[in-house]
This record gives sequence, C-alpha cells and structure tokens, in this order.
Amino acid sequence: MALDLKKRGFAESVVGVDTNEKNAQRAMELGIVDEITGIEGAIKMVDVIILAVPVDATIELINKILPQINMQVLIDVGSTKEPIVKAANLHENRKQFVAAHPMAGTEFSGPDAAISGLFDDKAVILCEKEKSSEQALKLACDMFSILKMRQIEMNAQNHDVHAAYISHISHISSFALALSVLHKEKDEKSIFEMASGGFASTVRLAKSSPDMWAPIFLQNKKNVTEVLDTYINFLYEFKLALFNNDQGRLMDLMTMANKIRPILDS
Amino acid sequence: MALDLKKRGFAESVVGVDTNEKNAQRAMELGIVDEITGIEGAIKMVDVIILAVPVDATIELINKILPQINMQVLIDVGSTKEPIVKAANLHENRKQFVAAHPMAGTEFSGPDAAISGLFDDKAVILCEKEKSSEQALKLACDMFSILKMRQIEMNAQNHDVHAAYISHISHISSFALALSVLHKEKDEKSIFEMASGGFASTVRLAKSSPDMWAPIFLQNKKNVTEVLDTYINFLYEFKLALFNNDQGRLMDLMTMANKIRPILDS
Repeated sequence: MALDLKKRGFAESVVGVDTNEKNAQRAMELGIVDEITGIEGAIKMVDVIILAVPVDATIELINKILPQINMQVLIDVGSTKEPIVKAANLHENRKQFVAAHPMAGTEFSGPDAAISGLFDDKAVILCEKEKSSEQALKLACDMFSILKMRQIEMNAQNHDVHAAYISHISHISSFALALSVLHKEKDEKSIFEMASGGFASTVRLAKSSPDMWAPIFLQNKKNVTEVLDTYINFLYEFKLALFNNDQGRLMDLMTMANKIRPILDS
Repeated sequence: MALDLKKRGFAESVVGVDTNEKNAQRAMELGIVDEITGIEGAIKMVDVIILAVPVDATIELINKILPQINMQVLIDVGSTKEPIVKAANLHENRKQFVAAHPMAGTEFSGPDAAISGLFDDKAVILCEKEKSSEQALKLACDMFSILKMRQIEMNAQNHDVHAAYISHISHISSFALALSVLHKEKDEKSIFEMASGGFASTVRLAKSSPDMWAPIFLQNKKNVTEVLDTYINFLYEFKLALFNNDQGRLMDLMTMANKIRPILDS
C-alpha cells in the first residue's frame, strides 16, 4: 500500500512503525517508508494511520491509538472484522476509525514481499461505514480508489462468514495439504520429485505466516469451524463414494464442483 | 504433446483418434492433428501410439491394441500406473508398451486446451522400464527428451503412492473446497464478490474434468483413501486447536506446514 500510495501521489511521505527492527530497516532500504519512528511519535506526524498487523495486535492498537487522535483517520486492513469493530465501538472516538479488508495479498510477508499493483482491481470490504465520520470515510474511500480497488459494503458479521469461506478455509486446506505430504515424505524420500503445477497451486498458501494466520482463525473461530465441518463432510462424501466404488457419485460431486468455473473465470 | 512433437520435428504427421467427433474436428481445425481416422486404421499408419484417455479406457485400449501391433510402440500417459502395467503384463506383446506419466497438465480439457511448451522442464515418471524392449524404450525416452522432460524411474506401486500425495489429493481438496463454498452460496448470495487470488489458486483444480478424474480416484482407491485419511486428520488437528483456543498448537501446525517453502521454491 505504501508503495502505490506514494507512487500515485496520495501520500507525500510514509512513516513506518514496526516492532521488528530488521524489517523496519529493510523497509527504509527498499524505499517503502521515508522514515521509521515509534508509535507515539508517528501518531502526531501523520494524517492517516493504516493498521497492517496481526488481527490480535490490531485490537490492542485500536485501544491504544483511538483515544490519542483528533482529525487523523485510523484504518485497519485485517482479515476479520467483527471483533475489530466491537473493539472500536467501545471508544468515544469511533468515528475516526474505518474498518476495511482489502482482499489481496500473497503467501509472502515482510518488506521484501511488497509489490506495486497488488490491490489493482481487487475487492475491498468496508464494514459499518455509518459509524465513521464523513471525513474519515471519504479519506478511506479516496485511498482505496487510488489503489484501484472495488469497494463493497457489508456488515462485519457477514464479512466474517464470507471471509471464512472465501479465504480462511483455503489457507487451512493448504496448510493441511502440506502437512499431509511432509508427513508421508518421512517414509517416501523422493515424493517431491514429482511435484507439478497442480500441487504448487493448491499448496502455495501453506507458505503463509503463522503469526498472521493464528489470530485470524481464533478471532473467526465460529465461522472457520463451520466451514471446516462442511469441508470435512464433502471430503467424507468423496471417501464414501470411493469406498462404494460409486463412479456415478464421484462424477456427480465433481460435476457440482465444476460449477465454480464461471465464477473463477469472471 | 502433438503440438510440440510436430513443431520440434519428432513427428512428421499426427493421426488423431477420438470418440468425440466435435473434438476430433476441432483438433483438425487447430492443426493439432493432420488427419482423423478410426482406431483400427490408425494402428496401421503410425510408428508410435500415445494413449491419452481416461485411465479406465486406457486399460481397454491396451487390451485391444497390444495384440494388433508389431514394431509400433504403445505409450500411455495416464495418472495411475499399477492397474495399467498389470493389464499390459498379461499380453505377449508387453515389450512394445511403455508406461509413462508426464506430470503436467492444466485444469482444462479438449483440443482448445492444448498449449505448446506444457511439458518443458516437468517430470515424467517411467515405470517397469525393464519390461519394455530396447527399441520401444529408446523411442519413448527420445520423445520425452524432445518434450524437454526430466525422466524419473519408479516402480508402478510407488508411483501410485506418490501420485496420490502429490496430485490426486490436491484435486479432491480443490473439488471439496469448491463444493463447500457453492453450498454456502445458496444462503449467502454475494459470497464470490470477495474471491481473491488465494481462493482462485486453491480452487483452480475444481474445474478439472470428472470424466478424467473419477477413474483415476477409483483405480488408485487404496492410496487415495490413505492420503484422504491423513488429510482429514490434519484438518481435525486444526479444528481441535481452534476448539481449545490453542494458539501455540495452531502456530506449531502452520510452522510445520511452512517447511513446504524450500520444496515449492526449488
């Protein structure tokens, strides 16, 4: 975001705050941020604060930052929304906060993973817009427009259901797939010689950061558990069809799954 | 294969055989094949026969073709190997057959899905090489060299174990993921508005052909069931850690899964 907001003239200058000193230095070297400082100092220097940290830290930082700001706008970009808006709603200064989830990312993290254009044409979900001030909301919307994102409004509860189905389960599915193959590799040394494009694509997300994902799964526990149950049930449907040598049922399951085609191609 | 074998001078001419007349015509239009004929006629015209059909049809065609050929070489490119070599081994003419699995493909099928360079730098598994004649094996190896594939030797049984873990489970995982989200979509109409790169990547294989995959899963039932059980167990590990609010266990599972990184990046 810093890269594109500077390149496209939205940000004159970007101040970085990071608990990890190496990452902070690296972000300076790469020109992603113009200076590094502590959080207290940064709050006083900026017009917009973007919280891009694990979602448990997001809540801590909202509690810390909201009471300290006046006209600055605080935007979070975390992958859960209900626990985050609940935290923000406890503050008198709620109106300076905008809850957002830009649906874009890669399996990589840290400053070296920053790429320009990541958000172009992707969706950003904005939650509880009515609780943000006109000024804060306008600034956030302008920012996401500069990032070329499609803006979608949704309540926080629905967001978390959808995110569980569209994003969180994909990650668990991928982590579990990696674990299954790594488990087998103990006995079958050359198993990865055969890895091809299909494997790489389904397992890609298993490279993702545990620091980022553990708090997401826990904050969205109810929905993630629901989709996990649905997912496991469909896997059992495949197992049962196999057990029964039921080619017709296997074909039916896959034909139903094929209905994802127009959605992925659109 | 036809595209690259012609372009790179290995094949003077390619004769197409397809039970689907539309696909046959389309392959002609696209210049993938030079003529279309029936299977009996084709056998007499060619030096090499490549069986690229669903794996149940592969076995039927081996039984039909092997007794009819002399110096022609019959190569199958199916995703299972044990049932296929077992079928071939029943024939006197076994030595003219080469069992191969080029580990490359896309989620698309039919002549319009043909792309040049698909096999470059990918692995091809050759099984039971010792049962093929020197002439047949040399021809198959030359062909896969022209296709720029890394040749790996493996017995058919090991191949089927590895293929279950590296390829077949990725497909089931992806089909089940698509089914889960499509199932939820009945209640949550706008769920796909949020779909992003991570979703597309894990669900891509759910577009694959049921005709191709049902026979693969059934022929490799034992190994596919084993990897499905392992996979479901790891999903339950995630569910249990969530149930216990056990952030440490979630982190451990994901950190173990992260060990897939150097393998995917190599």
